Amino acid sequence: MRKRLNQSLFLALLTAFAMTMNVTAQEKKSFSLEDLMPGGNNYFNLQPQNLYGLTWWGDVCINGGTEDVKTVNPTNGKEKILITVQEVNDLLEKAGLGKVHHLYGASFPYSEGLMWVKTAGAKQANILIDVNKKEVIWSQPIAEKAANQDWNKTSRSLAYTIDNNLFVTTADGQNHQVTNEPKGIVCGQSVHRQEFGIYKGTFWSPKGNLLAFYRMDETMVTDYPQVNTSTRIATLEPDKYPMAGMTSHKVTVGVYNPATGQTVYLKAGDPTDRYFTNVSWSPDEKNVYLIELNRDQNEAQLCCYDAATGEKVGGAIYEESHPKYVEPQHPLTFLPWDNGKFIYQSQRDGYNHLYLFDLNVKADGAEQTTGIGSKYKESVKVTQLTQGDWLVQDIVGFNAKTKEVIIMSTEVSPLQSNAYAVNVNTGKRRLIGNQDGMHSVKLSVSGQYVIDNYTSFTVPRRIDIVPVSGKGKNVNLLTATNPMDDYNMPEITLGTIKAADGKTDLYYRLVKPVNFDPNKKYPAVIYVYGGPHAQMIHNVRNYGAGGWDIYMAQLGYVMLTVDNRGSDNRGLEFENCTFRQLGTEEMKDQVKGVDLLKSLGYVDENRIGVHGWSFGGFMTTNLMLTYNDIFKVGVAGGPVIDWAYYEVMYGERYMDTPETNPEGYKKANLKLRAGDLKGRLEIIIGANDPTCVPQHSVTFLRACIDAGTQPDFFMYPGDGHNMFGRDRVHLYERITRYFEDHLK
Amino acid sequence: MRKRLNQSLFLALLTAFAMTMNVTAQEKKSFSLEDLMPGGNNYFNLQPQNLYGLTWWGDVCINGGTEDVKTVNPTNGKEKILITVQEVNDLLEKAGLGKVHHLYGASFPYSEGLMWVKTAGAKQANILIDVNKKEVIWSQPIAEKAANQDWNKTSRSLAYTIDNNLFVTTADGQNHQVTNEPKGIVCGQSVHRQEFGIYKGTFWSPKGNLLAFYRMDETMVTDYPQVNTSTRIATLEPDKYPMAGMTSHKVTVGVYNPATGQTVYLKAGDPTDRYFTNVSWSPDEKNVYLIELNRDQNEAQLCCYDAATGEKVGGAIYEESHPKYVEPQHPLTFLPWDNGKFIYQSQRDGYNHLYLFDLNVKADGAEQTTGIGSKYKESVKVTQLTQGDWLVQDIVGFNAKTKEVIIMSTEVSPLQSNAYAVNVNTGKRRLIGNQDGMHSVKLSVSGQYVIDNYTSFTVPRRIDIVPVSGKGKNVNLLTATNPMDDYNMPEITLGTIKAADGKTDLYYRLVKPVNFDPNKKYPAVIYVYGGPHAQMIHNVRNYGAGGWDIYMAQLGYVMLTVDNRGSDNRGLEFENCTFRQLGTEEMKDQVKGVDLLKSLGYVDENRIGVHGWSFGGFMTTNLMLTYNDIFKVGVAGGPVIDWAYYEVMYGERYMDTPETNPEGYKKANLKLRAGDLKGRLEIIIGANDPTCVPQHSVTFLRACIDAGTQPDFFMYPGDGHNMFGRDRVHLYERITRYFEDHLK
Repeated sequence: MRKRLNQSLFLALLTAFAMTMNVTAQEKKSFSLEDLMPGGNNYFNLQPQNLYGLTWWGDVCINGGTEDVKTVNPTNGKEKILITVQEVNDLLEKAGLGKVHHLYGASFPYSEGLMWVKTAGAKQANILIDVNKKEVIWSQPIAEKAANQDWNKTSRSLAYTIDNNLFVTTADGQNHQVTNEPKGIVCGQSVHRQEFGIYKGTFWSPKGNLLAFYRMDETMVTDYPQVNTSTRIATLEPDKYPMAGMTSHKVTVGVYNPATGQTVYLKAGDPTDRYFTNVSWSPDEKNVYLIELNRDQNEAQLCCYDAATGEKVGGAIYEESHPKYVEPQHPLTFLPWDNGKFIYQSQRDGYNHLYLFDLNVKADGAEQTTGIGSKYKESVKVTQLTQGDWLVQDIVGFNAKTKEVIIMSTEVSPLQSNAYAVNVNTGKRRLIGNQDGMHSVKLSVSGQYVIDNYTSFTVPRRIDIVPVSGKGKNVNLLTATNPMDDYNMPEITLGTIKAADGKTDLYYRLVKPVNFDPNKKYPAVIYVYGGPHAQMIHNVRNYGAGGWDIYMAQLGYVMLTVDNRGSDNRGLEFENCTFRQLGTEEMKDQVKGVDLLKSLGYVDENRIGVHGWSFGGFMTTNLMLTYNDIFKVGVAGGPVIDWAYYEVMYGERYMDTPETNPEGYKKANLKLRAGDLKGRLEIIIGANDPTCVPQHSVTFLRACIDAGTQPDFFMYPGDGHNMFGRDRVHLYERITRYFEDHLK
Repeated sequence: MRKRLNQSLFLALLTAFAMTMNVTAQEKKSFSLEDLMPGGNNYFNLQPQNLYGLTWWGDVCINGGTEDVKTVNPTNGKEKILITVQEVNDLLEKAGLGKVHHLYGASFPYSEGLMWVKTAGAKQANILIDVNKKEVIWSQPIAEKAANQDWNKTSRSLAYTIDNNLFVTTADGQNHQVTNEPKGIVCGQSVHRQEFGIYKGTFWSPKGNLLAFYRMDETMVTDYPQVNTSTRIATLEPDKYPMAGMTSHKVTVGVYNPATGQTVYLKAGDPTDRYFTNVSWSPDEKNVYLIELNRDQNEAQLCCYDAATGEKVGGAIYEESHPKYVEPQHPLTFLPWDNGKFIYQSQRDGYNHLYLFDLNVKADGAEQTTGIGSKYKESVKVTQLTQGDWLVQDIVGFNAKTKEVIIMSTEVSPLQSNAYAVNVNTGKRRLIGNQDGMHSVKLSVSGQYVIDNYTSFTVPRRIDIVPVSGKGKNVNLLTATNPMDDYNMPEITLGTIKAADGKTDLYYRLVKPVNFDPNKKYPAVIYVYGGPHAQMIHNVRNYGAGGWDIYMAQLGYVMLTVDNRGSDNRGLEFENCTFRQLGTEEMKDQVKGVDLLKSLGYVDENRIGVHGWSFGGFMTTNLMLTYNDIFKVGVAGGPVIDWAYYEVMYGERYMDTPETNPEGYKKANLKLRAGDLKGRLEIIIGANDPTCVPQHSVTFLRACIDAGTQPDFFMYPGDGHNMFGRDRVHLYERITRYFEDHLK
């Protein structure tokens, strides 16, 4: 209850501020898509300034750039040039090691004055430079085709992949071929299609002596026949794609020891229809932990393996299940000061929170049930560290002295990320830095300072060094201005409406036409995403309104976005009400957004359109078919049309399989309702989309033809699930034209 | 000169007639696309009546239908029921031979009263019924998967293919597997992509004792990766497609002898980069003739082979070359009364005409040159049978008694086909039947009568039995009415304009808007094809205006079609002025059509659009880019975008190869001019087009994206080069909408 009041206050303050900023400014500049779209030739100039090379050297701040690397004193902000790009390149040239173009990526992994840099291209290498002696003290050549490079600062070993196999180069320059698998078996790369927080396939032990890695056998997975039309005659580029309900790949986890050249595979049993997620090492390098999930994704087990033998160590440490799904997304985080304790993250009480596991104290393992229906068993002592109707987003690090873990959370607002220090012993927590806006922090090695980079609706960008203790002075590194201040901006406001369930608050963002006249009737377009793991509205510049929203406002459209139930950062039940029926509840909430538009008085109810991409393309198409009296024009990008064509991992989590949930798949199968199309709908895809494969849209066109309806269609040859660079500018020119053609 | 006067008179008469018919009829019905488009649910009802089962039994006319087969006395038209469908099915049922649904396809191959019918489906068979005795006297079961069935009435042997191999079933029911080739080698089917008049791959000797057949090795040809999206997960359906300048297939000709089970291949030498066309048998079954063409398609040789040994018999009988191309399209036709003489067809004097070859009289074989630059060598005596600035379209048959060959030609008008009897000894010729309209004739066995089916602008359809001699009475079998008379028709007129060369007459067809008001300004759309081997304007109902032209006229558009230089039935030089520069001259002529539109006074010059398919899609896209100030809206279907993506046979004839004609390919490569798009252009393709592969349009979209222009695009999944059935109605609804959206 206290929370809700706080949020209302927060909103009121933001809105009041927005209104004071709404000064009509006819003399100001107008935008073009080149200004507003990523890939546009003036886009970068309209972004608030940033510092890209900030990092830590112990507790000294480092600022790397195009000219040099500076140290910044965290107590007074005093800068000192450590080394210049010119000096670095002179050293590299002498050592025959190529060249760097900037030092944004330079890091200082040791307490000594050793700077790590990496060169690129044919002669790429990992390099350590002693910045005091101005001398290259170590380098490691990297094979030209090496991908997925993963370097361990302690052992200085480098893991990398070439094609589908895994390699290691040790500090002494020796090359090891770790795997030698035929095509169809992929080693050392991300698996399970990047779900479950997986983004890589190599995991060095803390001291870099052992390398855990994923091995994924895809030979049993069907190929999706992608076609490359840019060759002399078009060529086939088959892509392994496991569709919902179909045979999936099999993943195992290996541990390679460069000292012995031996690989041991963890004996986790038959990998068929199982997910091995969140590979974690024990601090002593003896054990590897996995969070193991069944194909149905409703039962997770935390298991421990002996890294030397691959044998499983004891039973499951922790088990968690939920009638809908569980979704482990974070590896274990061991306390730096106690090798027997780690932090586990779970949504079992409805929000992602921290749980402290003590491996040295056994528990009875009895099954317990939470208020939202999660069941769990704990075989060791577990203490919940955080709690509340907000969620932990990330663990940033620790301050070992104060026994605090530094986290990012939504505690201030679901539209924000703020840093907190949480005392691991007491659970007491303390906000770090400003309570306004979206923060991104980098913690110094001791945990004494953060570099706090933040932005909000009123703050284009601000970067400070902030003492984690809250005691002592902040040091400001950057206060950016907003280059859009020179332009004739639309009024952008934030608010909440009730969801279709009548009780849940939903955030919306409303963009009024530029030079707004309340006596006119404007066309309106809803920009929608609506799927899990994404949120369109944040307390950032323009509340996260995209360049296209602003462009459309300039052309005289009212732009609305509503983060419906099912979207991110509002907890598990807000998300999982869509289970087995993707689209249904989400659309009802979007129609609440339409009610809002209609209530405004200045929206022409007969000219309401909708646009979205990916899940938002699914929503757009679905809205055009389901609420075909409301929505007159839609542009759906890369849409899901039939969840049976989507991949196993993401798709089955929310929809189960076509066999176990036939009604749900039928209800969400837009081909079956192709005949309901009344308005103008353009479907746009990347012709080589490997995520939402062309089969979705192509079969939808066929269904429409058979049903006698007339969608429009366009595709970007060679592009994948999204358009980047110049293609993105072209795309939004196209989308704009479609609304101009048919909604104006 | 006389010819030109005749044609002018002809045009004047037609136009005068058209004007008298132009009665405004507000009370009449309006069309829908269901009435006008093939595939529309009322389309068939708007076609003039026809008789589909007419054929000959000796000199007795046969009229087969859904109820029975009748004989029709050719002198007085008296009909007699020969046998009913019910009687046939009773006989078939007794014999366990399936069922027929009609007798349209019944034929009478012998002088005796034997009727041939074929049943379909799982129990398909060739069947001979004695219509007098009412008895099945012979039947031949046909394998269920048998394709390309070719039955010889004399031996009663059936040739057919299953997958890529060739089979024969003899009269006694014995099955022979003629070839046993691996996938990639195709036997008994049409080769060279249906160019050179080739439409089948089996050729029975006159008495059916020997079977000549094509064998095509495609293993060295690249696959085009077609994708079938209708399967659970999309699947690859690779299709052998030799693109211009790339490695082509290799064709050989075999002769199979069912009596010995032996196959002999004609020893024609290395088949690399050669075409073997127009397989013909000598009447005595001893020799097989081929017209052999080099890959460059500018040198043809008529060669003779021994059918028993495969050895070549002597040198080339005839050789013909042309600096641009020669295009043999007709097999030899031996005179029924003289096995030593045959008729050869050639365009060597600029028009396709008949040449009588006498194998028994040698000639010196000296090279000679014609007025249009053709060179030829004759090793036997050759007499030109027909001559003039018109062309022979087909040989229908002979009257052995009068020594006449019956042909179809354009002698009356290039917009017509009329039948003529040509005396083989004297060259004297005589028109058969009415001089008006497009005729299609079937000659009786003795050559005494034709069934003459014709239609013209003023005659919806008329079918008569006409004595070839011109003496004796015609017997009328059908005089159809025009179901469109009940509808509010636009005025449709015919005329000529001068081509861009300033001298050549081009025919045009103009369709005025329904309820035309000369004081209004109308938008206009040019419907264009423009490529070789096709002509859009004929002296038939509506001068060949398609249903869509009429529909658009009803919506208020002026519709124009011009048969530009390069199109059919006007002779070789009219056609080959486009050589190595497809599109260039054709477009100049279309712009002359635009000049005509502008001269009319009632066309809005700022609202001129263009639509065409295939070559017409190439023309449409090209016009939109090249004359982008004239054409505001275009819809291009299945367009050629880059001739380098088109197949070897058709493409290289007109364009040579990308290596030998780089400038020509560059000039016609529309990708290179994608940036010139100013108006609205929608490209529409069949997503599985095997003729003009999707690579054309897909790479054009990429080129437009890269150039920053915005074409529209649509595709029909699962469809090939054209849309049929309901898809065709959908397509034209779509095309119409595009003009309504952007040109109105």
